[in-house]
Amino acid sequence: MISVDEALKIVLEHAQPLGAEEIGLRECLCRFLADDVHAIDPLPPFPASIKDGYAVIAADGAGNRLVLGDSTAGSVPKGVVTSGFCVRINTGAPLPVGADSVVQVEDTILVREEDDGRTEVEIKIMVAPKRGQDIRPVGSDIAKGEKVLEKSQKIGPSELGILATVGAARVTCYRLPVVGVMSTGNELVEPDEALQEGKIRDSNRTTLIAQLLEHGFPVVDLGVADDTVEALLTKLTESLRKCDVIVTSGGVSMGDKDLLKHVLTDLNADLKFGRVFMKPGKPTAFATLDEGRKLFFGLPGNPVSAVVTCNLYVIPALNKMAGNPSPKRTMIRARIADKIHLDPRPEYHRALLTWHPDDPIPQAISTGNQMSSRLLSMRTANALLVLPPKTEVLQTIESGALVDAMIIGRL
Amino acid sequence: MISVDEALKIVLEHAQPLGAEEIGLRECLCRFLADDVHAIDPLPPFPASIKDGYAVIAADGAGNRLVLGDSTAGSVPKGVVTSGFCVRINTGAPLPVGADSVVQVEDTILVREEDDGRTEVEIKIMVAPKRGQDIRPVGSDIAKGEKVLEKSQKIGPSELGILATVGAARVTCYRLPVVGVMSTGNELVEPDEALQEGKIRDSNRTTLIAQLLEHGFPVVDLGVADDTVEALLTKLTESLRKCDVIVTSGGVSMGDKDLLKHVLTDLNADLKFGRVFMKPGKPTAFATLDEGRKLFFGLPGNPVSAVVTCNLYVIPALNKMAGNPSPKRTMIRARIADKIHLDPRPEYHRALLTWHPDDPIPQAISTGNQMSSRLLSMRTANALLVLPPKTEVLQTIESGALVDAMIIGRL
Ligand SMILES: [Mg+2]
Ligand SMILES: [Mg+2]
Repeated sequence: MISVDEALKIVLEHAQPLGAEEIGLRECLCRFLADDVHAIDPLPPFPASIKDGYAVIAADGAGNRLVLGDSTAGSVPKGVVTSGFCVRINTGAPLPVGADSVVQVEDTILVREEDDGRTEVEIKIMVAPKRGQDIRPVGSDIAKGEKVLEKSQKIGPSELGILATVGAARVTCYRLPVVGVMSTGNELVEPDEALQEGKIRDSNRTTLIAQLLEHGFPVVDLGVADDTVEALLTKLTESLRKCDVIVTSGGVSMGDKDLLKHVLTDLNADLKFGRVFMKPGKPTAFATLDEGRKLFFGLPGNPVSAVVTCNLYVIPALNKMAGNPSPKRTMIRARIADKIHLDPRPEYHRALLTWHPDDPIPQAISTGNQMSSRLLSMRTANALLVLPPKTEVLQTIESGALVDAMIIGRL
Repeated sequence: MISVDEALKIVLEHAQPLGAEEIGLRECLCRFLADDVHAIDPLPPFPASIKDGYAVIAADGAGNRLVLGDSTAGSVPKGVVTSGFCVRINTGAPLPVGADSVVQVEDTILVREEDDGRTEVEIKIMVAPKRGQDIRPVGSDIAKGEKVLEKSQKIGPSELGILATVGAARVTCYRLPVVGVMSTGNELVEPDEALQEGKIRDSNRTTLIAQLLEHGFPVVDLGVADDTVEALLTKLTESLRKCDVIVTSGGVSMGDKDLLKHVLTDLNADLKFGRVFMKPGKPTAFATLDEGRKLFFGLPGNPVSAVVTCNLYVIPALNKMAGNPSPKRTMIRARIADKIHLDPRPEYHRALLTWHPDDPIPQAISTGNQMSSRLLSMRTANALLVLPPKTEVLQTIESGALVDAMIIGRL
């Protein structure tokens, strides 16, 4: 049986970034750039005031100035500032022609205004200005033509803001993989259906779809396939037309396994592995289809196993296909809250990480079996603890010991 | 000027959970439960086999059995198991009446089959079974009527799976706050518009909307308001009809400030604070409207300030309104990569946290001024470092020192 590391290596070898596509600015959130982005205009595009105050000629020094008018944000200042004159200017407003510095209003006093009490006629500058003071020169934030974002950059809210600033209304990003999620089994009914004899409600599809949506991947709900070769074959053939990746759960009991093997053979699939040395999730299968262009994950039917293996294999594969240059999950170190008995297999244990003021290392509390629905099992796990297999000398991990923790949720 | 802690305390006092609403299962992702959830059926709803094997009567002991037929997942087993007989059973299939234990196929040998080579007639059990062995009794995972999820629980993918399992097709959750995002300023044009003289492209609205959407909050794009009392008043009055929270950015330069003050007075707003002792983000305003039912955040126009103050105040407020019992951001400790010169104000510094194999404490690399668009500033910040104000004795924080880091992005 292969190890988790070997299995992930195989998965990532076969998951390749999809092609690029040009999309609208607001569709880019959480995507990865397929190309560098350059600024078409400088920022600021005009010399702009940093303060509320007066645009002046620095060489005039301190002393009185006659006020020619206003430059407010968004306006085009009229008139030219000449020696002895100034223009009242707001933060962000364009510097009028002729002026070479801004004096903040705090460094001035009003000398004379119109009788209406609203229009300033003359002011006095108390501190001699320096040339260029309180002005952002053209292109001081971003030069015209400058590379503002690099290929492979993830577009978060701030990157989206940079794209908006430089007017990148259309952006070249990697295409997102479309993932189809299917459950298998005659025993399954929909969550909103009443139970009939011998049936249970399908929860894996709901969980897996939510997990993939939460990571930003477009999902196709493929429903439930019955336990027959024909049903599976029809559903998978149809699904391959609209999906880049297919994720099934269930179908790993002995009779089911023969079924799936049969179907994958009929689909000309290239089975890369069918079991992994891990707990939970041993009967995880991975295959490529369509000459390597499509990926197939056959996850176990046990709800905890399905969640764990989706985190371990499916999400890194989708990350890589979406152009993420670091497709693996973030791994940190955490302190075990309670003693854990090790399993003969390496175990991926759902846990809640919390940080306490007196310890820079997070504490990891096991959520137990999520489906047992008791006590801590209610809590949203935000990490998978990576526990080593039991050996002669290592049977337990004691409370307070450090282990690797894979971040799977939002902290 | 109030501190960040005082400001946040005021904000959270005025942000109250919105009412409950009943929504469909798949709309619940990332919502908070407004009520406990109980199971309407036990899980499993029937005694189910844990193995592929044979359903037998334990008291018969080891030895030969005649095979009556099959019980497969999703079927209703026909016939009754009596002494000397057994039923072939698959994992997850219902236990037939009469049987009280399951013997896994590995502990049996085939004695005799029909001439067609497909139907088993007699098998031999090699190991004497124990009563109840390899059977999940009714309700062993979830008892009928059991509380499976508690009020205030966040519904992540696994919780959604629990809801699906217990058939909770309609779920009572806290309503999500609807947030309107508005930019202010005559100088602003849309990201896809060409620049005219004196104009710049609005990026804050794009960034703030993305940030709020990324946290799962429904957003209304309120566009750009011009710098006049009339324009602001019209837009805000209209927006209050459809939004629980309004977030503006800009409007904090001196003339703008008078404008905003005027408008808030006209709207009968209760201004709670207008400045906070922090960097960046000093001119952050917070007010309640509509007798405390609506919240107004006036964020600074500087892009970095807008992002920081949205993280510090707006997101915790929305978290609380959405029923999150722990609305504050997660705070952890991080090790500073490079020496930082402190500011006279407490500083919230955008940084990228990364974990290295040899250190359980993450390293924090400053992203610099995100808008300067150079080098490290390109990286997506996932944390805000909380730096203390400069004092006589504390002027810098040295490389390797630990500081508080507020998690703002997905790790
Ligand atoms: Mg099955
Ligand atoms: Mg303005």
